[in-house]
Formats: sequence, structure tokens, C-alpha cells
Amino acid sequence: MQQLLDEILDEVRPLIGQGKVASYIPALAGVPANQLGIAVYSNEGQLYCAGDGRTPFSIQSISKVFSLVQAIQHSGEDIWQRLGHEPSGQPFNSLVQLEFERGVPRNPFINAGALVICDINQSRFAAPALSMRDFARRLSGNHYLVADEVVARSEYQHRARNAAAAYLMQSFGNFHNDVEAVLRSYFHHCALRMNCVDLALAFSFLANDGVSPHSGETVLSARQTKQVNALMATSGLYDEAGNFAYRVGLPGKSGVGGGIVAVVPGRFTVCVWSPELNESGNSVAGMAALEKLSERIDWSIF
Amino acid sequence: MQQLLDEILDEVRPLIGQGKVASYIPALAGVPANQLGIAVYSNEGQLYCAGDGRTPFSIQSISKVFSLVQAIQHSGEDIWQRLGHEPSGQPFNSLVQLEFERGVPRNPFINAGALVICDINQSRFAAPALSMRDFARRLSGNHYLVADEVVARSEYQHRARNAAAAYLMQSFGNFHNDVEAVLRSYFHHCALRMNCVDLALAFSFLANDGVSPHSGETVLSARQTKQVNALMATSGLYDEAGNFAYRVGLPGKSGVGGGIVAVVPGRFTVCVWSPELNESGNSVAGMAALEKLSERIDWSIF
Amino acid sequence: MQQLLDEILDEVRPLIGQGKVASYIPALAGVPANQLGIAVYSNEGQLYCAGDGRTPFSIQSISKVFSLVQAIQHSGEDIWQRLGHEPSGQPFNSLVQLEFERGVPRNPFINAGALVICDINQSRFAAPALSMRDFARRLSGNHYLVADEVVARSEYQHRARNAAAAYLMQSFGNFHNDVEAVLRSYFHHCALRMNCVDLALAFSFLANDGVSPHSGETVLSARQTKQVNALMATSGLYDEAGNFAYRVGLPGKSGVGGGIVAVVPGRFTVCVWSPELNESGNSVAGMAALEKLSERIDWSIF
Amino acid sequence: MQQLLDEILDEVRPLIGQGKVASYIPALAGVPANQLGIAVYSNEGQLYCAGDGRTPFSIQSISKVFSLVQAIQHSGEDIWQRLGHEPSGQPFNSLVQLEFERGVPRNPFINAGALVICDINQSRFAAPALSMRDFARRLSGNHYLVADEVVARSEYQHRARNAAAAYLMQSFGNFHNDVEAVLRSYFHHCALRMNCVDLALAFSFLANDGVSPHSGETVLSARQTKQVNALMATSGLYDEAGNFAYRVGLPGKSGVGGGIVAVVPGRFTVCVWSPELNESGNSVAGMAALEKLSERIDWSIF
Repeated sequence: MQQLLDEILDEVRPLIGQGKVASYIPALAGVPANQLGIAVYSNEGQLYCAGDGRTPFSIQSISKVFSLVQAIQHSGEDIWQRLGHEPSGQPFNSLVQLEFERGVPRNPFINAGALVICDINQSRFAAPALSMRDFARRLSGNHYLVADEVVARSEYQHRARNAAAAYLMQSFGNFHNDVEAVLRSYFHHCALRMNCVDLALAFSFLANDGVSPHSGETVLSARQTKQVNALMATSGLYDEAGNFAYRVGLPGKSGVGGGIVAVVPGRFTVCVWSPELNESGNSVAGMAALEKLSERIDWSIF
Repeated sequence: MQQLLDEILDEVRPLIGQGKVASYIPALAGVPANQLGIAVYSNEGQLYCAGDGRTPFSIQSISKVFSLVQAIQHSGEDIWQRLGHEPSGQPFNSLVQLEFERGVPRNPFINAGALVICDINQSRFAAPALSMRDFARRLSGNHYLVADEVVARSEYQHRARNAAAAYLMQSFGNFHNDVEAVLRSYFHHCALRMNCVDLALAFSFLANDGVSPHSGETVLSARQTKQVNALMATSGLYDEAGNFAYRVGLPGKSGVGGGIVAVVPGRFTVCVWSPELNESGNSVAGMAALEKLSERIDWSIF
Repeated sequence: MQQLLDEILDEVRPLIGQGKVASYIPALAGVPANQLGIAVYSNEGQLYCAGDGRTPFSIQSISKVFSLVQAIQHSGEDIWQRLGHEPSGQPFNSLVQLEFERGVPRNPFINAGALVICDINQSRFAAPALSMRDFARRLSGNHYLVADEVVARSEYQHRARNAAAAYLMQSFGNFHNDVEAVLRSYFHHCALRMNCVDLALAFSFLANDGVSPHSGETVLSARQTKQVNALMATSGLYDEAGNFAYRVGLPGKSGVGGGIVAVVPGRFTVCVWSPELNESGNSVAGMAALEKLSERIDWSIF
Repeated sequence: MQQLLDEILDEVRPLIGQGKVASYIPALAGVPANQLGIAVYSNEGQLYCAGDGRTPFSIQSISKVFSLVQAIQHSGEDIWQRLGHEPSGQPFNSLVQLEFERGVPRNPFINAGALVICDINQSRFAAPALSMRDFARRLSGNHYLVADEVVARSEYQHRARNAAAAYLMQSFGNFHNDVEAVLRSYFHHCALRMNCVDLALAFSFLANDGVSPHSGETVLSARQTKQVNALMATSGLYDEAGNFAYRVGLPGKSGVGGGIVAVVPGRFTVCVWSPELNESGNSVAGMAALEKLSERIDWSIF
């Protein structure tokens, strides 16, 4: 496995230069483009890591899985009264669909849906940002995880589109807490810094019927675990979920920091990272690495 | 297994009466509502059948898988220059998305995408409707399959919305053959009559890496097979694909005749049928039966 | 007036070269671009003509006024059960709005609305194309008007988008006659050839409370006349109606043949023609000429 | 004239009960429904008033004309770099169109456009709300006009949809000042209380080539005046501008407080008020009264 990971990174490294590092906030635009890392964690506890797999990066939308899992833990099926679980067929930050569907977001992985999940968590937790950070620390076993305050502040300053979505949902009665407060929590989640190893460990309960292989903690029931994986499979890669299923064939979740986590149910968790993105906001080299990995060792669930 | 199927049908039978038989053409509206059947076919060749599993019905949109597989067989990856492989996030017959995306349908399972696939096949086959029928006969091993001419004609008379989609694509240059001719082929495909056993056998190559377990024919490569399953998983159930993944967790394809086929990769193919539909156009009892089956014997791919 | 018209043509002639002649069908694309004509007809019967004001051209969408007036003559207010009288806020051939508003077009001057008007007329007249041609002959006093059969046929061959709109309306139950037959009538209307003088005379009843100043025929009641003018003022120039009101301040109707007719209620009718169009499909030099005319002699109704 | 106004009020009074008083904020919902007033002011200085024509009401969207005129006064044609002058074809508070057109509102009378105008004025005036109030005082000759602070505060509390629009425009770079500050100004404008006489006098410059007949002040140039009237004619009555042109035939502007002002260029200004609204947000009795008035004394500009 270790050799395979090294090989694959060598094969996809030439793709660096074909994408664009996220630039909507200065703090992200400054990330050096030529980084590439990967980590694979097996349900038996073996960990493989290659390239820049131990360099922390901004997890961005990958945080939406942590928030969702927290919401499922305390509210279960009730959350689906506030949002759907269908793929969106629209760019991740479009308001058009949200208006037509009267403020009910399509799924928890588009921004509007993640904001509703944060709104649900805001009603539950005294300090949602800290609560989520501690959850990520426990899941990854890394107790030094912190959010990048500069990134969080910068995202807040560029909050216009997310604020528009939140206010639109509020106008339909589907947002219960103060918009500004929820946005601050949301951007803190996004600004959490983790590396590939952290993320592979943190997501490993999703490959193991809800039980974390390294800590033994039962995070979700087996059925809930399958449901989260199903959501990632149909909606986890912005408007490229279909392409990811077609090319890679695994449940996964990406972020504009360049990370992609994927789950091989019953076997492995993998996280790949490279900051340059394609037009859909997914890591160019990351997508290619996962496709190659899936082909070589037949990881597709299909 | 036989006992399990009988039990499940008994459990979901009370749902009959909660849905509505498709009524957009008289020939379908007349189908008796209280029918319910299931068939399961294993990769080892065991066949289980319960209820009305041997009563033929109109396969409707399930035919879109046959057309797609034919197109992949002769044109491979080239077909993706004419349509996408992303979930649509819109009702299956919406023109809005098609206009915004300039005549390129989102995927082969919405009507517009299936029409493009038929247009591709129309350019290839002298008699596309017969060609597809023969393909279904071979895949199912049932050489008596025929289309219901009354249904095909009636669908053609009510072709307005599909005609609108085809002409819209033609206006964007994404339709090459005569619209009326392709519509006739398309409605013949939809009007094919098959029963649950036929469909379980016909789809079994998708559970077996592309090789039909009963005939030994290699229909698709292993990789192409995974891709078709991925497409069904993200887009196979109209605008309920996310819900099907969430509740059942299998690649599947439904039709407004009330049939749903699902694939358990490496193990089984299953077809369930009951004519009453929910608001998304999927069989009410069929969805419930597959959900129970998936829960009981842990079939979810996630 | 004659001198003013000559001056204005001289002033706007340099704009020729800044637009584009309609090119969606070859028969229109071949029209020489450097033509420019104008005609003004007063309610007292004075006629002024300058430039190429006697060269016939394809009236295209200007025909929509003739069809509408015919429909009002035989069906009055009933027509508004089939379409609206609000501006559309969308390009003239968009299907998006039509689908959202369930097959009821916004107004009689977008293509979908004109098709519904043709459908209404098709139910009334044995030979709608001839009936409309004769109507235009009578209104203009020119008994030699004919449609250009080459243009009509060519438009029919490129009917895809209009066919899509008609079939979409049929799918909502808002189209009663055979789509192909109505499209043939529609394209015959569009292909009628008239010159600026013909059109100024033909529209003059709209400046004169419904009575044609030259023939004495009462075409519409005074109230109906105001209503048609109101419709032209809010919807007559594709998605540039607001700009036309802002710059020119008159009810008007344009066509992609490069003609624009405008009405000064109680006083004049004017028609200007130059084939090059702006991005909204309106004559570049024609718009400019009307703006100058409106400024110089204070014709704005506002 | 006085007698005519009395008659018309008697004729339309039975319509009271058929509409609904605006209820999106409690302060408006409490307005007694059975009020009905009218005022007509001639360019020669005659004032006619009937019914509750001297009872003040919340002018709401009628204030958009005052803001627009202020913006034209200090920025002229430059404002059209920030918004359009086309009718919108969408409900007045829809975000769909705003997103498609990348944050550039269609016209100054939909909410998004009025917010951009307020943003322009916010950059210019130290205290925009006071500045606009003083402008309305001067135009109406009533120096006791004030905004209803309870209404302004209540609207601010229910700002969600307008906030969504403002943030969406900010995300496209088309909003320069603090969103919350501009919203406060905007709601203060809307909460201004005026009666029919105030509004007839305040708008009278629009009937008189830009010069206020009672104060002699030149508010706009003659050409700018025509342009404002053109904007009201194509976009002044929410998504019923076409219907108002069709039925009444005058430039006008309505508000959800139940007021409608209309301009008869060169002759009169009229304001009618009755709180019950139709589905488009326009006064039911007010529309009917203006239609009757327009029919009886032939005021239509068409």
C-alpha cells in the first residue's frame, strides 16, 4: 500500500498547475499550490501516509460532515424536517433553487443546507464552534486541532452570499437563530486546520459501521452510518457528485481547501489533499489520485 | 430467501391504496392497482420469486438502462459529449434546466437524456426499437418479449412534453435525427412488457462485473459496469435518487409502470413491482419492499 | 417633416456596421446591411418617406400585431384566458418562464404568446395565413403584399425552438390545433414583405382611435386601440421595451427583419427600417432614428 | 371634477372586502380596511379631494420614486451602471432573476433596485432618511411629514428577504455601503406617512415637465421627467405593470400601504388610496377607481 500511494502521487503530481487555488479570500489564496499528500487508514488500524499527508490545511466544506453527524447525534431523523437529502443539480452556492423550494435546502452539503445544520446545532450547543472543534479532536485523536482565526475572520468579511442564503431561509421561517451568530460558527468550522492523517482517522467510523477503529467510540449506529455515506455518495462533491461516483465510486466529501475524504465501507478511509481546484471546486490532483487508487485496488462500491 | 420475500410482500401489501397508478395515458391508467411482485436472482444462478413476480408490466423508464447500455456498447465514452452524468435536482421532465444548460441533458435517466441516447442509437441502428427489444430478449433469456403497441401509440399521442424537450435540444444542435422518428423509438422502448423475473435476469450482468450469469455473455467491461451502477445510484429514481440511496442504499432504476430494479454488486439482482406510485413517480410498495430487504439482509453498498 | 427625416437618416447612417443582420436562417442573412428607410404618416393623411422607405423587407415579429388585432376582432377579451398582458423580463424565446407559468405565455409579443394567438386564429379561419395577408393588404392599402415563400420555408425548417414552445404549451393543455399547422401559419405571417410606407399606413388606425385614416375602416374600438398601444408600450420591443419607453417614449413593435413601427397617439404613425440588429434583436439605426425623432419633435407620450 | 370623484368613490366602495390589508408586519395589518380616498391636482393648481383623501397612510413603495429622483438629481445617467430600466416579469421581491443577472436589478422599482438606489444615496447623503423626508416635504409643500418609527422598526425586524437581496448584490460587488445601514434608510423611506393630497402635490412635477406647479421648483429636466414617467409606466405596479397600462393607461406607482399615484402628462396628478390589496400587492379599489377615471375622462396616454 505504501508503495502504491507513493506511485500514485508521482503519477498525479504533473497535474499541479492545471487548477486554481481558491482565491475568494486572501488567507486561502496564499497557500502554496505545489503541495500533495495522502493518507489511508484501514479498519484494522494500519495507517499509510505519503507526500504532504501530515501538513495541515483548511478543511472548509469537509467540516459539513462533522456538523451533520453532530446534528444526527442529538436530533436524529428530525433534521429532515428542515432540509432534504436529494442531490441539488446546482452549484453549491446557488440561491435559485433555494427560493423555488421555499427556503428548504436540498441537502446538508450545499452551503444553504450546512447553514441550516449549523442553525440546528446553534440551538443545541452553548458554543457550537468549540463543540465542533472538540468533536473533531476526539474523532481524529489529535487534541491540538485549532481553527485558523485569520481565515475565519476573512470568510466572515466575505460572508455576503452565505448571508443572503441565511436571510432568504429566515424569510421562509427556516432559520431560527441570529444570522450573524450562526455565520460566525459556520466559518469557524470551515477554518479548522487538519491534515490528511487527521481526516482519515476522523472519518474512519464511517468505514466501520459507526465505530471509530482507533478509539472504539460508537459515533453513529450502523444504519445512520450508511445514511451518511449515502448522502456523501449522492451530494458530497458539489456539482460533481455524479462524476465522482462515475470515476471513483466511493462516498466522499471535498472542500475548497483542496482536501477530499473518501470512505471504502468495511475496509478503509482515505484522505487526499492538493490545493489546486477544478471548476467545480474539487482538488484536481486529489480527484485523479482517488480515481487511480480506485481502479488499481478495485475500491468502487459499485 | 423465499420465505423472506413472502414475508416482506405481506408486510408492504397494506401500503396498496396509498399511491396512484400512472394515469397520463389511458392504457396505463387501467392497470389493476392491487398487484405486487418480486424476484431475486443471485450471481450463482438461484432465482426466487414471490407474489405477482411473473406478471408482465410496462417497463417504462427502466428501458433507459437498456438504451444506455446499447449506446455504451457501440460508442463508449463518446456519448458524454452529448449529455452529462450528474444528478439533475429537477423533476424528470423539466425543461428549465435543459434550457439553462443549453440543450445538454444532465444524465441519461431524465427524459431529455434518454431522448439523446435514443437519438444516438437511432443514428446507429436501422430499426432501433427492434434492436432494443432483441437486446432485452437476450439479456432476460425470454424470447417472447414484446412492446405493447397500444401503449406505445398512446404515449406518442401524448408526446407533447417529450417533443418539447427534443425540439429544444435540436434548437441547440444536440439532436441529429428526425424528432418524430426518435420519439416513436423511445415510446416503443418504454412500452416493452417484462415481468420481475425477466428484469432480474436482464439486469444481472450489472451485479456480476458485466457478465450475464445465466448466458455467460459479456455485456460490458467491469469498469463500464461500475459506471452504469454509479449512474443508477446517483440518478436512477427520478428526483428521489437521494432518498433511495438513503433508505435502500443500492443502485437502482424505476419506471412509472411501477417496477424498480436494484443491483447488489457481486451478489444479487432484484426487481420489485407494484403499480401505485408516490409523488415522485416511484412505486410506493416497491420502495418499501426494497427498504425492508436492504435492512434485513444488509444489502446496502454503503 | 420631410427635411427632418432626411437629416435624421443622415445622422444615424454612420451606425450601420455596429449591428448584425439576423442570421438564424440563410434567407434573412443575405439582406444587404446598408439599407435605411423611414416613413411617417399623419392622421390627416400626409405621408413622408425618406431613404429606403419603399423597399420591402420581412416584417417578422411586426406581424404579431396583425395577428393580435385579428384575434381581438373575433374573440375580444376572451383571448386573455389563454395568455397574459404583462411584460416578460426574459428573452423573447425563453422557455423557462413558460414552464414556470404552466404554459400560459406572458404576453402576445413573445414568441410563445404569438403562437397562442395563431392557435386561436387557426381555430377561427380556414386559411389563417391568407386571412392575415388579406388583413395586412387592407390595412396598408397595398393589394400586392405577399409572403416570401423561401423565408417561410426556411423558418419552418429551423422551427425547433418555436416547436418546443408550442409542444410545451400543448403539454399544459394550452394549444388546441396541430402544432405543425400552426407553425406553418406563424412563419407565413413572419415572412410577409412590406415596406415602411405600407407599415405606417397599416398601423395608422392605432394612432387614430381605431379608425384607419386612409380607408375609413373601423378596425378596433377606441378602448381596444388604447389597449393594443399599451401592450406595445410594455412588451413591444423584446427585452428592450423598458429601454424603448425610456429613450423613445412611444408604443412600438419591432421585428428581426430590422423594422420598427411606432405610434404617436392622436397624431402620427412612423416606421423605420435598417437590417442590422443590436443584441436584443432590435434595429440599431432604427432605434437611434426614433430616439432622435422623439427628442426633436417631442413625440413622447410621457 | 369634484362630483366625478365623489361618484367614482361611491362606485368602487363596494369592492372593499375583496382584498387583503398588507399583514407582513403587525403595524400595517392594523390599518382599518374600509378607508378610501382620492385627490386630483391639475397643472393649473386646482386641487380636488374626496373621501379619506386627507388621511395619512404609509407610502411604502411609492417612496421609491422619491429616492430615484434624488439619485437622478445628483448622479444622472450614471445610476444605470448599477441597475437596469427594464420591466422584471417577476414578483417584486424575487431573488431568482437577481442571481441570474449577477446582482444587477432589473429596474429601480423592484425591491432590489430600490435598495441599490438607496445604496447610491447612502454614499451621497450624511443622513439619507432625513434627506429624503425633507425632499418629500418640499415636493408636497407639507412640512409636517414624518416617518412612522414603529413601522420602520417593524419592517427592519422583518428585513430577512430584503437583507438577502442586499447581501446577494454585495456578493456580486453591486452594494457599497453597510447592508444594515442602507436597510434602515430604506425602511424609513417606506414608513413615511403622507395623504392623497400630499402625494398628488408631491408628484405634480412629473405631470408638468419637471417643474412643480405649486412651488415653481425645477425638480428634473423635461427629458428626465419623461424618463421617470416611462419607468413608472413599464415597471411601477409590481408584476401588474402591463395590466395597469392595459386598464388605466397612465404612468403610476403603487405601495403596499394601499396608495397609487398616477400622472397624466401635461395635465393632472392623481393619488388614490384604499388599504386592501389584490394578489399583486396593489390596492383593489384604487385600481378600479383609476380605471373608471381613465375611461370617463379619457386620460390614457395611449
